[in-house]
Amino acid sequence: MLGRTYERENCSAARALEIVGERWSLLIIRNALFAGQTRFTEFQHALGIAPNILSNRLDRFLEAGLMQTRPLTSTQETQEYVLTSKGYDLQPVIVALTEWGDRWDAPQGPPIIYRHQTCGGRVSTSLRCESCDDTLEATRIIAEPGPGALPGQSRKT
Amino acid sequence: MLGRTYERENCSAARALEIVGERWSLLIIRNALFAGQTRFTEFQHALGIAPNILSNRLDRFLEAGLMQTRPLTSTQETQEYVLTSKGYDLQPVIVALTEWGDRWDAPQGPPIIYRHQTCGGRVSTSLRCESCDDTLEATRIIAEPGPGALPGQSRKT
Repeated sequence: MLGRTYERENCSAARALEIVGERWSLLIIRNALFAGQTRFTEFQHALGIAPNILSNRLDRFLEAGLMQTRPLTSTQETQEYVLTSKGYDLQPVIVALTEWGDRWDAPQGPPIIYRHQTCGGRVSTSLRCESCDDTLEATRIIAEPGPGALPGQSRKT
Repeated sequence: MLGRTYERENCSAARALEIVGERWSLLIIRNALFAGQTRFTEFQHALGIAPNILSNRLDRFLEAGLMQTRPLTSTQETQEYVLTSKGYDLQPVIVALTEWGDRWDAPQGPPIIYRHQTCGGRVSTSLRCESCDDTLEATRIIAEPGPGALPGQSRKT
């Protein structure tokens, strides 16, 4: 199992960060999602990441079910790392992070644009209310305990 | 300035992670966003985080413009930490992380539910195509260089 970094937390954001919150984790996933990388050497060369750290991160992804291995016969490497549905499902997280960086730290404009494969339109994330279908501004959301809350657990603490 | 953790990267997701990718960073922001916490001792007690780490994270948020200080006179603390628009704007990232954790690592159901303050409806993130207004599945997005790309930069590497 992964180290329980945030073991006092009963919160899905904290649990997600236990799996993908380590340095390099989300950038490896990003390269798998959007650059189609699957091989150890591809990740290593593209990211300039130390082999021991990369190896550790990939092992954790396998352990957590974000990736699975597939045998390789045509290269010197014996296996490749392929995203599972759980790994693919991090796409909205990475797009949301990218949009925040684009808005606040991209003076030359966005370095990368996400497009809908079918029609070529720009892809963006939005916060929506499932009841009134409003697109929401940041200040108009409240957090309340859900079915998985601990007794006495309130809001986000 | 913050340490340039991912200095080879010209990518807004990597830049965002330089600012909020350290251990505890997004949970502090989460507590500020959804539990209304502003004081050093509130964050410290709620998260069980070491004071030196908390102090370091808050200093970085001030430096990066995610929070600003406001003087306090009624408590033993002299200032509180208040999110700026840049800090508030991380809300979609945290909701997207939470949704991922809810889907993949919340066997008892979601510990926390986000609701629209006005109507009480459930709030969720979605990936949408701005052109055809389709809600997108994970596999139907491509990444291409944007105006801030470096010469020769392709996709996500």
